[in-house]
Amino acid sequence: MDKERLRKQIEFIVEVDKLKQIYRQTLLMDGSRNENDAEHSWHLALMAMVLYEYAPTADLDITKVLKMLLIHDLVEIYAGDTFCYDEKGNLDKADRELRAAERLFSILPSDQGEELRGLWDEFEERKTPEALFAASLDRIQPLLCNYHTGGHTWVKYGIKSDKVVERTLLVKEGTPELWDFVNQIVEESIKMGILERSPDK
Amino acid sequence: MDKERLRKQIEFIVEVDKLKQIYRQTLLMDGSRNENDAEHSWHLALMAMVLYEYAPTADLDITKVLKMLLIHDLVEIYAGDTFCYDEKGNLDKADRELRAAERLFSILPSDQGEELRGLWDEFEERKTPEALFAASLDRIQPLLCNYHTGGHTWVKYGIKSDKVVERTLLVKEGTPELWDFVNQIVEESIKMGILERSPDK
Repeated sequence: MDKERLRKQIEFIVEVDKLKQIYRQTLLMDGSRNENDAEHSWHLALMAMVLYEYAPTADLDITKVLKMLLIHDLVEIYAGDTFCYDEKGNLDKADRELRAAERLFSILPSDQGEELRGLWDEFEERKTPEALFAASLDRIQPLLCNYHTGGHTWVKYGIKSDKVVERTLLVKEGTPELWDFVNQIVEESIKMGILERSPDK
Repeated sequence: MDKERLRKQIEFIVEVDKLKQIYRQTLLMDGSRNENDAEHSWHLALMAMVLYEYAPTADLDITKVLKMLLIHDLVEIYAGDTFCYDEKGNLDKADRELRAAERLFSILPSDQGEELRGLWDEFEERKTPEALFAASLDRIQPLLCNYHTGGHTWVKYGIKSDKVVERTLLVKEGTPELWDFVNQIVEESIKMGILERSPDK
């Protein structure tokens, strides 16, 4: 038993507890309060288990997907949550998150730090089927949250349908069979008056 | 695309959002508020990724462990959280949770409902290495929460060291190499005055 190795692992486990206090713009589906990153990460991992059959390849590595989703927002412990429609906040998001990743993953023993950093990089790059599938679920979940909470963030920040569709375009690649479902949610939201249709261009 | 199948899957995904509102006795590690089941499940799954090397067998199926941990508390959506030291509440816990499992997993398409029910049964039976490892993490995490929050639930309910050790005995089987670490936390907690040593028998 390498005690120093275990000490680092436990320090990391205690440090990531802070993810439970990073609140997102989306509400819980009953609208009672904002969702936090730990809950969100759990929900995405469970969605991956249930929606696995809609992945872009039949031989998807589900273990990698689950791991990616469990860690994908950890950097927000130091970098904070950046709202996807916050244009100013998104200017330096990559830089803030990169520094956060370096700080956070270095708490772990180096082999594990590198493994988790590799998973996070892969998720961010959105190139592999696993990363595309994971990122696609990360688009669908907030859509469901908004749909079930009277379009909370759409209404609050005046987000129109074009922006929502643009934000969810990744679903075409990550869960192609669910693209119709996503569009159906957008259209229903417009009909319900919780999402404003973008003016014709 | 089987639309009825997708409808069931989405209904399940929306229903399990309620896990974010099932609060546990333990506090977040900074003591600011009670932890909920969704956050707890996420934390355990991340712990499994980090503490994997302490599993009782070298060929552990980590995918199964992650899936088990992600769903292990879902039944509490209907059955509520039963505090581990609540003797009365634990009398009918198994029955309440069984009924909850039947209700919840039947929302899914039957093949997936059966798969998740199988994982939950396996976790509850604590016989396979995967179930033992997962359940062991489910003992260590609240121990860490109590250690970092002045022994919150121990002090609140007058839980003495014998009960804590008894509750964590499963670690001997599920993560044998961590048994010393668990005892060290218990001893340190006693020294810090946040856990009362049981009287000699």
